[in-house]
Amino acid sequence: MVSARVARGAPAPIGVFDSGIGGLTVAHEIIRQLPHESVIYFGDTARVPYGPKSPDTVRRYSREIASFLREQGVKNIVIACNTATAHALGTLREEFDMPIVGVVEPGARAAVAATRRGHIGVIGTVGTIKSGAYERAIRALNPDVMITARACPLFVPLVEEGWTDHPATRLVAKEYLAPMLEADIDTLVLGCTHYPLLKPLLGEVLGPDVRLIDSAEETAAETARALHDESLAAAADAEPNYRFIASDDPLQFLQLGQRFLGGAIEGVEIRTLG
Amino acid sequence: MVSARVARGAPAPIGVFDSGIGGLTVAHEIIRQLPHESVIYFGDTARVPYGPKSPDTVRRYSREIASFLREQGVKNIVIACNTATAHALGTLREEFDMPIVGVVEPGARAAVAATRRGHIGVIGTVGTIKSGAYERAIRALNPDVMITARACPLFVPLVEEGWTDHPATRLVAKEYLAPMLEADIDTLVLGCTHYPLLKPLLGEVLGPDVRLIDSAEETAAETARALHDESLAAAADAEPNYRFIASDDPLQFLQLGQRFLGGAIEGVEIRTLG
Repeated sequence: MVSARVARGAPAPIGVFDSGIGGLTVAHEIIRQLPHESVIYFGDTARVPYGPKSPDTVRRYSREIASFLREQGVKNIVIACNTATAHALGTLREEFDMPIVGVVEPGARAAVAATRRGHIGVIGTVGTIKSGAYERAIRALNPDVMITARACPLFVPLVEEGWTDHPATRLVAKEYLAPMLEADIDTLVLGCTHYPLLKPLLGEVLGPDVRLIDSAEETAAETARALHDESLAAAADAEPNYRFIASDDPLQFLQLGQRFLGGAIEGVEIRTLG
Repeated sequence: MVSARVARGAPAPIGVFDSGIGGLTVAHEIIRQLPHESVIYFGDTARVPYGPKSPDTVRRYSREIASFLREQGVKNIVIACNTATAHALGTLREEFDMPIVGVVEPGARAAVAATRRGHIGVIGTVGTIKSGAYERAIRALNPDVMITARACPLFVPLVEEGWTDHPATRLVAKEYLAPMLEADIDTLVLGCTHYPLLKPLLGEVLGPDVRLIDSAEETAAETARALHDESLAAAADAEPNYRFIASDDPLQFLQLGQRFLGGAIEGVEIRTLG
């Protein structure tokens, strides 16, 4: 589906980064919605996960990656990681002179558009939930919405173990989501790019009345708007190319990554950071 | 229980490091067995976990930490992390001119001493199990032992979530340990410094006939021997001091660390690496 290198003459690429492979769900949606744009994806697999780490450390890592992507000639940056968006979006917008899109605002917008009774649940990593980034983004759009938030630190390792439909995962989900059911949410934001792989199981636990929001689609749409506003969009006849770069073991990235990208990855480069 | 800084005139400290807080179970045992030795503990909490990462990356991180500990004046180094021992023990022994003790050989020795029917199980991170380090160490001591090994990547996040006695953890343990029960092991090496916190639950799943080996005690004993052999042991009237250093958020280290050290930690310094 995707080739490994940006060809000569290809448009300047969109830089997309994540702590690891989860952000490939966002890259997938960008590739689908913007078929003429080239993409460089960076997964910080040597330092994954960001979820339990401090805001300062996540900001430092995000800044290093953004600098690397800028060196690679990207025209904008998509932070395809909720924790990095929560901690580093403001910093990168201040320090980098290009459009920077995160996943939190698009996810919040999609949730506010989807809610029927005005009660939204948010799940994410410890870092994302502690930051309160979703609450702020949702309330900025609609101050009357009720929000129930909960960190779900075991979901990422369960997804990476491949246990997306396992009794243990169901047990963990029931415990994590009990406060959501009690609070009678009507919409749940999947505030971590790993969680879309748990959609069927989460839907089963929460029942058909709760809408599940993943921000990939809306983030890709916002990326398109940002490129258009800055006259940075690729020409309609441009030939896109894709590069995938990881800070650790390319083989592991290749193997796990296919599940997240929803298509074959032909080659992964390795780049040490930090 | 422990004070925060090495006092002037204290003996040169033992350097102990781990990817995070798990190695505090080893530091605890060193402090207990060697009450006159000072200790500097480094937890690489900014880059934890090492378990799923490649040997090259783990070696690079281990080398950086060992260099930092040498700068702090340690007289020897204890690698209190199974994954780092599996990937980096040989490298550090080559590159650092001081005694280096890992946790794999001591754990293997304890297991070979404990087994009655000669069938040992080994559990650990993906990195530790893939490396085959325990198999090699056990067979070097007794080539006739049968070994059943399995990676248990969910145990570390379950312990860090505090779910050491939770139905989900029991379900995960039953699945991970099923091959051990089938193979009829009589001894199980807990090949990750997080796992001792799961001892009661693992004992319940495996039954009373399986001995559980954690290498902390034997590693401390080997450290004592190494210091004695090199005439590096502290004087019998030396006043020990303890320093705890983390590469990320000291507060989190403090909170989680108490459970692993089995005692109060008075202060944690922060030091950025990499």
